Amino acid sequence: MVSVTFEPSPGGAPAEAPQAPNSLKRTALQEARTPTSPSVTFPASAPLALDCGKQLGPFTVAYETAGTLNAAKSNAILVCHALTGDQYFAHENPVTKKGGWWELMIGPGKPIDTNRFYVICANILGGCLGSTGPASIDPETNEPYGLNFPVITIRDMVRAQVRLIDHLGIDQLFAVVGGSMGGMQVLEWAAHFGERVYCAIPIATAAWHSAQNIAFHEVGRQAVMADPEWAEGRYHLQQRVPRRGLAVARMAAHITYLSEAALHAKFGRNLQDRADRTFSFNADFQVESYLRHQGSTFVDRFDANSYLYITRAMDYFDLAGEFGGVLANAFRGTKTRFCVVSFTSDWLYPTHENRKIVQALNAVAANVSFVEVESDKGHDAFLLEEPVLFQTITGFINSAAARRGLAPARRAI
Amino acid sequence: MVSVTFEPSPGGAPAEAPQAPNSLKRTALQEARTPTSPSVTFPASAPLALDCGKQLGPFTVAYETAGTLNAAKSNAILVCHALTGDQYFAHENPVTKKGGWWELMIGPGKPIDTNRFYVICANILGGCLGSTGPASIDPETNEPYGLNFPVITIRDMVRAQVRLIDHLGIDQLFAVVGGSMGGMQVLEWAAHFGERVYCAIPIATAAWHSAQNIAFHEVGRQAVMADPEWAEGRYHLQQRVPRRGLAVARMAAHITYLSEAALHAKFGRNLQDRADRTFSFNADFQVESYLRHQGSTFVDRFDANSYLYITRAMDYFDLAGEFGGVLANAFRGTKTRFCVVSFTSDWLYPTHENRKIVQALNAVAANVSFVEVESDKGHDAFLLEEPVLFQTITGFINSAAARRGLAPARRAI
Repeated sequence: MVSVTFEPSPGGAPAEAPQAPNSLKRTALQEARTPTSPSVTFPASAPLALDCGKQLGPFTVAYETAGTLNAAKSNAILVCHALTGDQYFAHENPVTKKGGWWELMIGPGKPIDTNRFYVICANILGGCLGSTGPASIDPETNEPYGLNFPVITIRDMVRAQVRLIDHLGIDQLFAVVGGSMGGMQVLEWAAHFGERVYCAIPIATAAWHSAQNIAFHEVGRQAVMADPEWAEGRYHLQQRVPRRGLAVARMAAHITYLSEAALHAKFGRNLQDRADRTFSFNADFQVESYLRHQGSTFVDRFDANSYLYITRAMDYFDLAGEFGGVLANAFRGTKTRFCVVSFTSDWLYPTHENRKIVQALNAVAANVSFVEVESDKGHDAFLLEEPVLFQTITGFINSAAARRGLAPARRAI
Repeated sequence: MVSVTFEPSPGGAPAEAPQAPNSLKRTALQEARTPTSPSVTFPASAPLALDCGKQLGPFTVAYETAGTLNAAKSNAILVCHALTGDQYFAHENPVTKKGGWWELMIGPGKPIDTNRFYVICANILGGCLGSTGPASIDPETNEPYGLNFPVITIRDMVRAQVRLIDHLGIDQLFAVVGGSMGGMQVLEWAAHFGERVYCAIPIATAAWHSAQNIAFHEVGRQAVMADPEWAEGRYHLQQRVPRRGLAVARMAAHITYLSEAALHAKFGRNLQDRADRTFSFNADFQVESYLRHQGSTFVDRFDANSYLYITRAMDYFDLAGEFGGVLANAFRGTKTRFCVVSFTSDWLYPTHENRKIVQALNAVAANVSFVEVESDKGHDAFLLEEPVLFQTITGFINSAAARRGLAPARRAI
């Protein structure tokens, strides 16, 4: 096993790398191939066996950590990120220069307390922030994989994470936690590697992707593939970027992350810096301006092919299907403790989908808590300031940690 | 006033028109410029004054009728079509060769009974089936309008319809009825031309476009405009068609027309003609195949610029805004009888939006019935087999017709 580790370089990109217009930022493509974060590369002699039947190797898993692993290696929490997330859960993202995406949840004294826990987050397989994905160089051709990258599944992503956790010498994770697609990974961990997961916290997720969710993803993929700049996935080779298609995909997806109520409260029919309608196709409305901004900034930080592969993995996700069509079979005999959380206004992964997970766990007499958080923030609520979510996670983790024999949180004097 | 009328030609296109590959079909562009249906052209000397401040003239209104106008001209019903509808409500569409889009609702013995009523439906201004729109030839340039077409509003569409109703010599319509954007037109009629509307039936609609609905439309517009074949709206001149962009726009919109439950019931996670996932970006799932089909067939029948203009008109729609921000003011003193209908699973124009119309009508003591129809068919329910909808419309129309002194329906012996 070969470990190639890049130390974080807060000052910016290595000197030899081409610079983005803003020299403090690294480009997404730089990060896809030489991540700022630590990473581990598994050699071709130890490939990953994928659901599609292919073997992927060598492959790299880029990851970040926070906190300190205790001597017993019993205080590790694996955080699984969502579709467009990354390993920078509590650190500045080297491309966007924004803070960690889950700083509200994870940090010193936070619900996932880095004073107590060693928290790990890996960029998913197929991603574009340093783990092997379609933007990576295929060692067989010395060209970017593009569409030669194998179509992967959520389970494949988890297989790659298992290799990372092995590499870190951790037998059992104290917790695996994630929202949205991160929650799907949590469920895969619990279903296939239950003995390695003391507790599991799937948030705002589902045990399979619904027809409506597949439909929205298909729209996004078609938008990307309709862009001539996509060039059948070979845009990197041709120095092109399917900016417009990927932006449209992001705009469509972004609507599904918010609730109607949130959009109404945030924007309503407010006009953008103008007193009246312009009778044109300009972004008259704030909500239009907001979506255009979401679309255009996304393109700078995300790889279009990764977007195709990851949405495909989500569409393929069907945990019941992996267990003969009976979801409860995924958890039969489990000793893992579960905390399932949903949000009232989440219409992408609504409460009734989360409840099916709870029902399956109940059917096998698993130890499960379920909290539906009242929120008008829609699916994105799991990333936002939601006190009831924080209380729920804090309470569940404290209780499980006590049972696991971990030291309690230090109290402020 | 010049009336240029084309008789319906069920056998196909006039001999001089270029033929579509299928000689029985006419192309959408042929229909945009020389409709199969009757039409009336108002000369430049009698232009339409638009909300944007511009004058449009000459302009054409293409329309279809069914049934017979009585001597008193008191039995006319105007049907207003939705975003991608047309005047072929009860007749074969010359482009698609499909039957009328509201044959379930309108015809002999149907809820809107053509044995009793003279039913009119006009292609909206800005549309692409014969009424003047961006695909029409601008007489000033002899080129298609494209983006030189003025940005219109729902009220402008209604202004054009008023001219048609004047032309037909009808003082008061017995009813104005329509679903979705058609319902918006119904509300404009009632608000601005109330004395000409005996009863009004807005179905599955809203008095203003919500932030979420604006957002979905903006995604569709951006998808069209991202397509290089759109060519800044000049694609007709360049013999190009923004097929891919318009297809993506249609796919995104189509999801919003169905409910999650309908998508689940219709497709679930069923695969399309295959036993297992292909681990590719093919349309593995039925819902993907269905959406791709919806997208590609739409392009053959609809003009991309019309799609931009009509969605814009819907986004601009805010009936309260036209009346000082108080929706009730739109209906103050109205004598029109209203029947408002919504569907439980319609998340595009949900019951709470329809209820706001009812509340405004109640606030001015208008005569209003409100029915929320239990349905899992989503927004499209108004176009589909919904017995409670049909009973509601039948009952309301029979009651209003009796009060108006119109002959009752003939009963089968």
